[in-house]
Amino acid sequence: MLSKSQIKLITSLKQKKYRVQHGLFVVEGVKTINELLKSHLQMHRLYTTETFNIDAKLEVLITESELKKISFLTTPNTALAVFEIPKPKKIQENSLIVALDAVRDPGNLGTIIRLCDWFGISDLVCSTETVDCFNPKVVQATMGSITRVNISYLDLNQFLSDTKLPVFGAFMEGANVYETTLINKGVLVMGNEANGISKTIEALINNKISIPRFGNIQATESLNVATATAILLSEFKRR
Amino acid sequence: MLSKSQIKLITSLKQKKYRVQHGLFVVEGVKTINELLKSHLQMHRLYTTETFNIDAKLEVLITESELKKISFLTTPNTALAVFEIPKPKKIQENSLIVALDAVRDPGNLGTIIRLCDWFGISDLVCSTETVDCFNPKVVQATMGSITRVNISYLDLNQFLSDTKLPVFGAFMEGANVYETTLINKGVLVMGNEANGISKTIEALINNKISIPRFGNIQATESLNVATATAILLSEFKRR
Repeated sequence: MLSKSQIKLITSLKQKKYRVQHGLFVVEGVKTINELLKSHLQMHRLYTTETFNIDAKLEVLITESELKKISFLTTPNTALAVFEIPKPKKIQENSLIVALDAVRDPGNLGTIIRLCDWFGISDLVCSTETVDCFNPKVVQATMGSITRVNISYLDLNQFLSDTKLPVFGAFMEGANVYETTLINKGVLVMGNEANGISKTIEALINNKISIPRFGNIQATESLNVATATAILLSEFKRR
Repeated sequence: MLSKSQIKLITSLKQKKYRVQHGLFVVEGVKTINELLKSHLQMHRLYTTETFNIDAKLEVLITESELKKISFLTTPNTALAVFEIPKPKKIQENSLIVALDAVRDPGNLGTIIRLCDWFGISDLVCSTETVDCFNPKVVQATMGSITRVNISYLDLNQFLSDTKLPVFGAFMEGANVYETTLINKGVLVMGNEANGISKTIEALINNKISIPRFGNIQATESLNVATATAILLSEFKRR
């Protein structure tokens, strides 16, 4: 049975201010919930139509129509879990770090988190203008990778001013990445979907790199930020 | 002024069977419409709140509330155009071709079309189970690239049986792509989001390739098909 206050709490977690206020976020789908259960994340409560046989104090059996009331999906799965937002760990400045300057699309951020996980990037740092990683659409798109990448929201300007690591940035007019010597230690900055990297951040970048275009001059102006991140991480890691 | 029959025609184009029946598809947004106007594609009609100053017989000035009735977007732009579906040209089997085996997500197909454009891939061939490239969500995601890539829907099994080109396919257990000699002539097959490349198509692949995972063994099981395509096209083209 689902109480009115539970419904109110869960649906409020669609909005960042309530996620911050309660320190909680929502995950849907048995597969992703099981991934999170295996991780260091703390479950707050599980609402499910079929038992998971976990701690009975955490599990609430509900009906399909109750699930519909709380789900953020148009086609709800069989379970919705509320987890505690983890505290970010200290950033390890000894390998490759990915930094995002105002990436706004939840699908793009989710894909980038999954790419960081695949390429063994421990730290993802995001400017405060970047979409919240505990946004339900981001969590869904990460397919569990959100538990394995340490994500910190911070003043990117300050972080890049303070770091001793070389700072790389993806620009349309940067050096050909295929001809650039890359080292597996540094910060790779990726910019906003529409505007790229902002002027203040650009001033802090030592190495501008670019993915060359092979199509004719009428070809598409740019690559999507998630696919560009995929290609650049592959270039940093391939040696 | 918008007639009832125009509204009925336009809204019907959300569905593939009506797109096929009428030979028409919808494009929204001034920027993308302008890209299509510059291409070989034939405009059927333009519905817009502000004149484009093109052939008056094609242009229909409408109000914002009329645009809301015909738009497929939650936040309509200022213009919606109907274009004729172009006939695919003959496939050129003399360079790299991308082939999709039942890719279902419109966003993924749109991203892959944009990647083909960027990397100078002239031909994209799709199994008949692949999502229709004139689906409005696909058209939107391609950002105009759909006019510059020749897309053919065909019996993929037959095409791969007949081709004299070497056939590459992305598999989890393929050879490390970074250690494989790639030639810029062949077919690169990418599989379905959930099931990868099907068994019948797998039998026709000469070269199984794979993007190595650098994260720890708990890391994400797979990459998204669009990001994997980005990395593999970069590998084929980078020399």
